[in-house]
Amino acid sequence: MEQRKILLREDEIPRQWYNILADIAMNPPLGPDGNPITPDQLAPVFPMNLIEQEVSQERWIDIPDGVLDVLKIWRPAPLVRARGLEKALDTPARIYFKNESLSPPGSHKPNTAVAQAYYNKEFGIKKITTETGAGQWGSALSFACAHFGLECKIYMVRISFDQKPYRKSMMAAWGGNCVASPSPNTKAGQTALERDPNTPGSLGIAISEAIEEAVSDESGQTRYSLGSVLNHVLLHQTIIGLEAKKQMEKINEYPDIIIGCAGGGSNFAGLALPFVHDKINGKQIEIYPVEPAACPTLTKAPFVYDHGDTARYTPLLAMHSLGHAFVPPPIHSGGLRYHGMAPIVSQLVDEGILEPKSVKQNQVFEAGVLTARSEGIIPAPETNHALATVVDEARKAKEEGKEKVILFNWSGHGLLDLTAYDNYFAGNIKDIDLSNEEITNAEKVFADFPKPAHVKHE
Amino acid sequence: MEQRKILLREDEIPRQWYNILADIAMNPPLGPDGNPITPDQLAPVFPMNLIEQEVSQERWIDIPDGVLDVLKIWRPAPLVRARGLEKALDTPARIYFKNESLSPPGSHKPNTAVAQAYYNKEFGIKKITTETGAGQWGSALSFACAHFGLECKIYMVRISFDQKPYRKSMMAAWGGNCVASPSPNTKAGQTALERDPNTPGSLGIAISEAIEEAVSDESGQTRYSLGSVLNHVLLHQTIIGLEAKKQMEKINEYPDIIIGCAGGGSNFAGLALPFVHDKINGKQIEIYPVEPAACPTLTKAPFVYDHGDTARYTPLLAMHSLGHAFVPPPIHSGGLRYHGMAPIVSQLVDEGILEPKSVKQNQVFEAGVLTARSEGIIPAPETNHALATVVDEARKAKEEGKEKVILFNWSGHGLLDLTAYDNYFAGNIKDIDLSNEEITNAEKVFADFPKPAHVKHE
Repeated sequence: MEQRKILLREDEIPRQWYNILADIAMNPPLGPDGNPITPDQLAPVFPMNLIEQEVSQERWIDIPDGVLDVLKIWRPAPLVRARGLEKALDTPARIYFKNESLSPPGSHKPNTAVAQAYYNKEFGIKKITTETGAGQWGSALSFACAHFGLECKIYMVRISFDQKPYRKSMMAAWGGNCVASPSPNTKAGQTALERDPNTPGSLGIAISEAIEEAVSDESGQTRYSLGSVLNHVLLHQTIIGLEAKKQMEKINEYPDIIIGCAGGGSNFAGLALPFVHDKINGKQIEIYPVEPAACPTLTKAPFVYDHGDTARYTPLLAMHSLGHAFVPPPIHSGGLRYHGMAPIVSQLVDEGILEPKSVKQNQVFEAGVLTARSEGIIPAPETNHALATVVDEARKAKEEGKEKVILFNWSGHGLLDLTAYDNYFAGNIKDIDLSNEEITNAEKVFADFPKPAHVKHE
Repeated sequence: MEQRKILLREDEIPRQWYNILADIAMNPPLGPDGNPITPDQLAPVFPMNLIEQEVSQERWIDIPDGVLDVLKIWRPAPLVRARGLEKALDTPARIYFKNESLSPPGSHKPNTAVAQAYYNKEFGIKKITTETGAGQWGSALSFACAHFGLECKIYMVRISFDQKPYRKSMMAAWGGNCVASPSPNTKAGQTALERDPNTPGSLGIAISEAIEEAVSDESGQTRYSLGSVLNHVLLHQTIIGLEAKKQMEKINEYPDIIIGCAGGGSNFAGLALPFVHDKINGKQIEIYPVEPAACPTLTKAPFVYDHGDTARYTPLLAMHSLGHAFVPPPIHSGGLRYHGMAPIVSQLVDEGILEPKSVKQNQVFEAGVLTARSEGIIPAPETNHALATVVDEARKAKEEGKEKVILFNWSGHGLLDLTAYDNYFAGNIKDIDLSNEEITNAEKVFADFPKPAHVKHE
């Protein structure tokens, strides 16, 4: 009988993360004075052990036993041959996915949440603050903090807080404390509410609030945690791609095309970076980050220096950005509503190593429902962005009569996003496309900032 | 580093189900004339291939490749060492569970849903009707029907329909059509609504509605499907216990105590029956089905002949029953709100092979939250009943200083039951205990029915 899942044993889980900073050149983050930021300047925000990881140039970084032990609650994640979807599409392509939906919070996010909670605990921190979009990240960090006995405070983007009440319950089940953002508790929140009392909120605002709460704690025992974007977050996610490589080797496969949805960039990069390493070293692979047309950071926004948050608390990061004041339209994929993009992913797009794509909302849900019915798992709306491109590529392979090998990341399940599916079935999903005027307006906020260099790896 | 999960490869999935009817004597189901029912009398309700399975005396029944192929979407299920819970309880007991929450619908239910959809498809059926309590079963059957291209209609118990709107969305994502029960569409539903327009509904009423729709289809292409209680359902679930046995053998363990929550009895029996086989053959094991004190079928109701549904469409089954007209109090564990119990489980309790326990609602959620925070997975409220007893037994092992091996079934996750957790945290969960008067009243409905014999296995 045909094999569906390629499994690893617990003792085959990778023992090191892959750090792409050893293989590419990057524009450094800049401080308020325009100079590269120093570790000391970040110390009020992150614990020093994570700051060191953020700037490390070591290619391989050991995964601590204390992290692996918690990852093993659900890892290794299966590599799945999507035979049902292949059949539904009648394609000669062989489609594989990493199933990251099997973690207790339901997404890839705990891969880094567990590591970050571990390092904070090691550094003597008692409380972690963070933001969350769709709620996946807040759930993941609550889950991780429960394991290490840390307090967890989550600022959840207002529109998702309202659309997904069960996410808050989930965080509470793990002991996390979740509030809607913008909130009246922080200066950043107050400012946002003054500007627009009915704002749906944004990741940018929520990040500002969480940072503000962390740095305001005079005991020095609170730090902030980010669920995507930063180098160390993408580092922790590379366990996805490293497992996938081992699994594909076991069946003598290698992908022609790699696909992942991209909001801040971490699930995409987690799968893709170990393969980017191969591409840099000469392998022929097409690698597609996929974003919503409603928030087209990689496909339409420039590569600039900009802040990661609305209140401009973060350093300037070299990234594709729609502008730190941009509030993305209220699509259901909260995890993809971010004005910026991970500097590593942005850099690789600027170098032409990655080829970003954007997709519209109805196409996204069409692919999601087709996959739910043929593969069995109901995907998160974010994952449906990857699926829309998988479906496109599988159909192209059929037209061209080519046996392409497609590998994508199933970033999460949609069991707490079922309202989005209800809206799709009711015909209430809009195909939002950002206009050039909106983009030009949004870009004004970084017009006076320094410009990153177009560096290339050697 | 310590192992958390004992995994099997896909090719180690059992290829046969274990049929306990080869090893125990049972009271036969009786027809309206008081005589044992014939396969022909059941033919309008179930396809003949499943009727044959229902009465088979073969100890081992092959699992068709077409069933195994779909089960492999999530099976084999991990056997997990609950190290986090052991640590939280500081117990010398070694606690293991089968994680049945990893199936796409989130519970053990698809183990039989897939088999039943397969056999209906093989028999040429186009549409399946069913009932659902908490929604787990309706989701599972929708998922299974999507795979075999069958239409699926689900009558969902009103209180769960209202408490868990996302379950309906989930069924819709897989193409299932879910309505609240009692509905005005069937005679059984109309009667129930006349008796009490505000009834929370019950599994008994919903079963009547689903059977009525199936047998009323004059094309003969609709059949009914039941998610628990019947012999063939428990048969399909034995894959859980058979996998668990293989997994425990791999680490040279054998359980002293087996625990599962019991509503209709299928998740409990799925884990327990292969071990009951050993107990019948001389092994020393304690085996505990656990039910809510609010619906104490095994612990307080007699072993009688009664109908499986409220409108008395089903044959008389020899089982523990609170009476077919009984409407259980509206606790959050919809899957455990059933007036009867699987005849196989009832028979084994009558023989003293199983020792049923009942638990109260606050104790149930206390155990669930402790486990969510120490093991990471948020359990279904049904699973929390098993957990309450696991916690009791682990504490007893500590008091006695004994290294007991406890094995339980994690029947499902609670991601679509988070309202129940909200209510628990808000202090709104009531400890409902059924009074003797309520039980005596409920029992009147079967006073005139034949009585089952107290048969014993040889």
